[in-house]
Amino acid sequence: MSELPKLFSKIDELKPVFIDRLSKAVAIPSVSAEPERRPKVVEMANYLSEELKKLGTIVEFRHMGKQDGFEDLQLPPIVLGKLGNDPAKKNILIYGHYDVQPAALEDGWATEPFELVEKDDVLYGRGSTDDKGPVIGWINTLQAYQEAGIDIPVNLIFCFEGMEEYGSDGLDELIEIEKDKWFKDTDAVCISDNYWLGTTHPALTYGLRGVSYYQITVSGPGADLHSGVFGGTAAEPMTDLVHLFSKLVTSDGTIQIPGVMDMVAPVTEEEDALYEKIHFSVEELQNALGSKTNLFDDKKRTLMGRWRYPSLSIHGVEGAFSTTGAKTVIPAKVKGKFSIRTVPNIEMDQLDRCVIDYIDQEAKKLNTKNTVKAECLHAGNWWLSSPNHPNYVAAAKATKEVWNVEPDYTREGGSIPVALSFEKALNKNVLLLPMGRGDDGAHSINEKLNVPNYIQGSKTLGAYLFYVAAEL
Amino acid sequence: MSELPKLFSKIDELKPVFIDRLSKAVAIPSVSAEPERRPKVVEMANYLSEELKKLGTIVEFRHMGKQDGFEDLQLPPIVLGKLGNDPAKKNILIYGHYDVQPAALEDGWATEPFELVEKDDVLYGRGSTDDKGPVIGWINTLQAYQEAGIDIPVNLIFCFEGMEEYGSDGLDELIEIEKDKWFKDTDAVCISDNYWLGTTHPALTYGLRGVSYYQITVSGPGADLHSGVFGGTAAEPMTDLVHLFSKLVTSDGTIQIPGVMDMVAPVTEEEDALYEKIHFSVEELQNALGSKTNLFDDKKRTLMGRWRYPSLSIHGVEGAFSTTGAKTVIPAKVKGKFSIRTVPNIEMDQLDRCVIDYIDQEAKKLNTKNTVKAECLHAGNWWLSSPNHPNYVAAAKATKEVWNVEPDYTREGGSIPVALSFEKALNKNVLLLPMGRGDDGAHSINEKLNVPNYIQGSKTLGAYLFYVAAEL
Repeated sequence: MSELPKLFSKIDELKPVFIDRLSKAVAIPSVSAEPERRPKVVEMANYLSEELKKLGTIVEFRHMGKQDGFEDLQLPPIVLGKLGNDPAKKNILIYGHYDVQPAALEDGWATEPFELVEKDDVLYGRGSTDDKGPVIGWINTLQAYQEAGIDIPVNLIFCFEGMEEYGSDGLDELIEIEKDKWFKDTDAVCISDNYWLGTTHPALTYGLRGVSYYQITVSGPGADLHSGVFGGTAAEPMTDLVHLFSKLVTSDGTIQIPGVMDMVAPVTEEEDALYEKIHFSVEELQNALGSKTNLFDDKKRTLMGRWRYPSLSIHGVEGAFSTTGAKTVIPAKVKGKFSIRTVPNIEMDQLDRCVIDYIDQEAKKLNTKNTVKAECLHAGNWWLSSPNHPNYVAAAKATKEVWNVEPDYTREGGSIPVALSFEKALNKNVLLLPMGRGDDGAHSINEKLNVPNYIQGSKTLGAYLFYVAAEL
Repeated sequence: MSELPKLFSKIDELKPVFIDRLSKAVAIPSVSAEPERRPKVVEMANYLSEELKKLGTIVEFRHMGKQDGFEDLQLPPIVLGKLGNDPAKKNILIYGHYDVQPAALEDGWATEPFELVEKDDVLYGRGSTDDKGPVIGWINTLQAYQEAGIDIPVNLIFCFEGMEEYGSDGLDELIEIEKDKWFKDTDAVCISDNYWLGTTHPALTYGLRGVSYYQITVSGPGADLHSGVFGGTAAEPMTDLVHLFSKLVTSDGTIQIPGVMDMVAPVTEEEDALYEKIHFSVEELQNALGSKTNLFDDKKRTLMGRWRYPSLSIHGVEGAFSTTGAKTVIPAKVKGKFSIRTVPNIEMDQLDRCVIDYIDQEAKKLNTKNTVKAECLHAGNWWLSSPNHPNYVAAAKATKEVWNVEPDYTREGGSIPVALSFEKALNKNVLLLPMGRGDDGAHSINEKLNVPNYIQGSKTLGAYLFYVAAEL
């Protein structure tokens, strides 16, 4: 334990080096969603590989072939690494991603998105918090271990992908291939790719909601119609769709599909007691919303609504009029999109049956001549880990050491499919250890990472390695 | 009356000339919606002007300034003409438009849209039926009068615009300016810019529905949200919108807004008797729809649904997810668009009050924290003429003379605002005298005009001038 202060002062000493390292990473616009920037994604893989090699990491690239839906677009490599092979040490698998969301100054950024700008102890730039900051954070802490002359107490296995922001194309396949090879000795997994719940208190994340995405297609005439000529004589698909949409969820967020809420795990007394301790307020939600249109006025029900109850959102309609102005079209075929965020113990197949049967039944009641088809477009399961697992205990000790507080134990409303993928393939505990704050704006303009989160965060990752060696 | 056979043989003789004239007009892509083609619209105005001058017409251009919403785009000229000034003759105002809808081969046209192609007695090309065929038809029949040595029995006042397909920018203003000048001696108005109800029987059109276009704006958060993070904690505007949409109209087309149907003129016995005679079948509707999703299975109710009852169509949503794929967005602000086709005796202001009050009231019931605002974006009134007016009697006699049948007296479900504008400004009877068939595909791919409609149609226009001189 006496070695952590040494590690921490080395990290403080190296702060300019660490900011420079992140700066170089942010300067590479590794946007996975833009095919023309694919060479930049590859450049970022190379940069990461070089930084890892400087630590003594053995690095291998895995090429997962061409991108789905493109004639001739190679996926960026998945960067695998190994640092240390002491059979006496535990093996920790670190996942992160080196690609970023699209960004352009004209979207409203206050500074150049692909230039790391430090202002008032905040680092602005695309990827600063999602997920270059945390990925570089691992490299930082390992450099500090080495320069401080401290033995790294675990063996590290790295898996950094370059397609996370565009569906993680190829990753599940790679995990399946490597689970008994590159990843075979894994004792625990640590992912730093999410955020504190709020802006002040560090967190460990042990659960994620799943998502099942549905489409209702209503089709009638052979082509779009003019409402002057055909209004009042043709059954209109859009009319049917809005009636079906209106049966799904009420304005207060209550899901109306029979059977769904029955699958939700009841709140135990133990869980009920957890919420009061969590550092969060409805005002923080209102700040994030930019409005006072929150559904619930108390903290507990809000947190439950975010991560332990399902929610249903109607996203939009494909095929209808959708731009400005006033077009008098009767759309011939409309595809209504909605999704349900899922939680324990909702079973995906059972949910699909509930949803599709219900829509079929409601469509029959409409007595329309149009054709209605409901289907699930894709689904990813919810994930719930054990916050009492030694992997979490280690992270909690690390947090306490660096931040002098107990972490909040949080769940996320969204999904991080890779957590479940690793857990299923390796059957090992997966920990989500966030570095950034809840207001970092990961996918928005002016994405940022506060300097304390970056530097203390790098310390937290280092302390975690220290404690996990002891706890596992 | 003895002179009409002479006119008709001259028209038959000139058929190749007439097709060539239309061919030259179609070859000019006078698309008013495409600013880069504005010079072509002007070229078409010049072509029309030259053709009119060859007949001895005095032509003047009216320049109505710049197009709304553009920095520096001049509106195409409104072409005014006068042929004949015999004070003993009646003055007939002819309206038409020389601009066309956009068209491109890649939209699915079987032939080049801006090349008139004759195949199996059908003329294909953009503008063939809407509205170059009818406009050129007037020139044709006047040329035939002159070449046959027959005195044209009326004075003609022409008004041809080049912005009809893009909102008739400038036209109402021009009518207001010229009503006591260029148009001042008008005795009756004839517009050939619509279609037969079906494909076999000529028609005179004496009524149009109006349209009132509404928007419901629901806004909540300051920006779009991620449904993972915020689903279940934020009031979602799209949920509110679909509930409001679902209160407007049922799947069988019944308008649910109280007060609307109360304003509709009751069906008189006389009107009730009219429908049986009209040449139309539900099968024709199904052919036009390309499906069997018609609301009613009998002809009378279908025709009533089309032109004597109001209808409500939901057009789409601005601000929601609207493309292919599966985006998990909670839209922050959505604008739902719908319109009501109006009929006698709906009053536009009263309708707005019914609609907006009802939406406000239904929004209150939702008990949502989001903001709901309903408004009328634009409205054009319905129009109903008198089919017993001498102007219609003349057109009926002309139709009988050329086609050997009594015309169907029809109304249109859509709106042709200029009919009402002329009627209001000049206080004279307005006649809609269609040339093309119901399946011409005016705004679609493969727009066409059957050769018999073009040639017999030109004869009908000529015979109308003959009879209207006698009847008025």
